[in-house]
Amino acid sequence: MTECVFCDIVARRAPATIVHETDSVLAFLDIRPVTRGHTLVVPKVHSSGLESLDPAVGGEVFAAGQALAGAMRRSTLAADGVNLAMNDGRAAFQTVFHSHLHVVPRHHGDRIRFVAGMITRRQSEPEATARAIRAALDS
Amino acid sequence: MTECVFCDIVARRAPATIVHETDSVLAFLDIRPVTRGHTLVVPKVHSSGLESLDPAVGGEVFAAGQALAGAMRRSTLAADGVNLAMNDGRAAFQTVFHSHLHVVPRHHGDRIRFVAGMITRRQSEPEATARAIRAALDS
Repeated sequence: MTECVFCDIVARRAPATIVHETDSVLAFLDIRPVTRGHTLVVPKVHSSGLESLDPAVGGEVFAAGQALAGAMRRSTLAADGVNLAMNDGRAAFQTVFHSHLHVVPRHHGDRIRFVAGMITRRQSEPEATARAIRAALDS
Repeated sequence: MTECVFCDIVARRAPATIVHETDSVLAFLDIRPVTRGHTLVVPKVHSSGLESLDPAVGGEVFAAGQALAGAMRRSTLAADGVNLAMNDGRAAFQTVFHSHLHVVPRHHGDRIRFVAGMITRRQSEPEATARAIRAALDS
């Protein structure tokens, strides 16, 4: 066993219920599902977060999530909708530090809220905000 | 104006604070931000949901989200973490029916929770669940 449980799952050293696999990604059921069918898609090569994730592999992680979302709707799970989510960093509630995309099947009226908290939801200084992000994108 | 506000933003018929643009995607500030800098990445070609989204474009949407996440950390916003989220379908709280990826900068202690509700978080029949999803993936 290594220090990363998702690397152990990829290497089949740790158990998991596997849903999907490609050359670069593995998808398996979350052991603490938000809803039945909650699946995680991980890159096979370790990356602790988005900063070290090969963007091409990131695209494949998302593509797997998209394919799984369609499957969850078509399957006997009969999902009415799907949330895709990646939490990057402890401040964003990442708990396992091997990048992973949550794929969460949803049903009408399942009473799960995906955002809660102290939210103002008003824009303040949008131009300055956008300028700050753009400057860092270019740097 | 068309019936889709995001198509109008892409066509510059509706106002938005634009953060990033490539040949296939546009990123702009959410007008009801969860946190300062909350950005949406949309494919330029309309697709109401994941089912009709070209997977190659989906990968580019995700890549833009990844780049923005890094920029939000490096920028003067100084994000400690970032949530990427796509809500697909009304049951998953999609409200604008033009696919979009939320990119939400986070800070330690910002008190936003991204999942709340009636959650058991115990697996029930994982093998049957995985089998159902796999069968639909292959169909």
